Amino acid sequence: MPKQTANAELFSQDALYQKKKSVLLRTAAECFNTLGFKGTSLKYLAQQLNLTDAALYYYVSSKDELVFLCYEKAFELGERTLERAIRDGANGREIIKLFIEYGIEVMVGEEGPVAVISEIPSLSAKYRDGLMDRAARHTGRVTEQIRKGVADGSIAPCNAVLVCEVILGSLDWLPKWYRPEAGYDVEEVKRAYTQTILLGLDAKS
Amino acid sequence: MPKQTANAELFSQDALYQKKKSVLLRTAAECFNTLGFKGTSLKYLAQQLNLTDAALYYYVSSKDELVFLCYEKAFELGERTLERAIRDGANGREIIKLFIEYGIEVMVGEEGPVAVISEIPSLSAKYRDGLMDRAARHTGRVTEQIRKGVADGSIAPCNAVLVCEVILGSLDWLPKWYRPEAGYDVEEVKRAYTQTILLGLDAKS
Repeated sequence: MPKQTANAELFSQDALYQKKKSVLLRTAAECFNTLGFKGTSLKYLAQQLNLTDAALYYYVSSKDELVFLCYEKAFELGERTLERAIRDGANGREIIKLFIEYGIEVMVGEEGPVAVISEIPSLSAKYRDGLMDRAARHTGRVTEQIRKGVADGSIAPCNAVLVCEVILGSLDWLPKWYRPEAGYDVEEVKRAYTQTILLGLDAKS
Repeated sequence: MPKQTANAELFSQDALYQKKKSVLLRTAAECFNTLGFKGTSLKYLAQQLNLTDAALYYYVSSKDELVFLCYEKAFELGERTLERAIRDGANGREIIKLFIEYGIEVMVGEEGPVAVISEIPSLSAKYRDGLMDRAARHTGRVTEQIRKGVADGSIAPCNAVLVCEVILGSLDWLPKWYRPEAGYDVEEVKRAYTQTILLGLDAKS
């Protein structure tokens, strides 16, 4: 659960609006992931941040907007992660490996947690439609990298569209079970994902 | 989207309560997966089933109960799938392979769709606590089969707890993107999952 005292300190200082908003969105993401969509109220979030309800409305005007902002941030991080992986990876396989590793680092690191994107269809049209398109574009770009890997010979021939869903499903679900307090070693989490997805579980004989 | 005419026919006949309830839960799962948790109302569900609001309350007393019943059914199917895989699989690797294949068959087949279990924490305590325990037990049993595979030499040494989350994440997310009308071949979906998770994406040299 969010640390109320640390948040209180930050909000009582004259810190930047963006920094405050960032803490707000991370705290909101944590609430959504652990308490559920319905279980998270703006009132509860304000309490966690040591803000009055009125002060919280300075940052977000509704729960709908809050969910939208959390998802927007999740997409931003996902897109940035993919760009980094494309820049750093020498072939398709390596790009996918780095995409998984960077993605996990971001989700469990300073910029996380990231909200599990389960409620786009519930949002009002002005928020929903853009996010739907963005999700489809992101999936398309990851799929393209898998295809690239098949073409350059680093990834075994496969149905890139479906394999992309397998990978994104496993990654997107991480914030639902990962808890910092459980003391998982981040390197071990990265290894579990890349081992499973790149090498497979089969004992190689 | 659910087929209103087919549902109308079923509900106007003197079909069994359980059969009606089963259609109700499958329709509800489809609504939750495509319209979101907040986006699904009992009123909308009643319309989809060609039922009056009052008639729907004969089957479920609240949205909370509806979500609970959908999740309960998802767990039942998941547990049954695992039991079948354990019965049919000769070693750990084969059990995991069958668990994935049977799971996909159930989710995209006659008994599906299955609701994506994203909102357990939102439920009232009487529903929530039992489902939390059930989720933990199911995860524990799948983990046990991975460990069994490592022990019998059919699965490569790995962190079974984390690998289990990778597998369950990818599987549990399937109802969120899979659409029957997209015309995916079920065998190809199964192959994409088992290829990725058992063999890995690496081009074997």
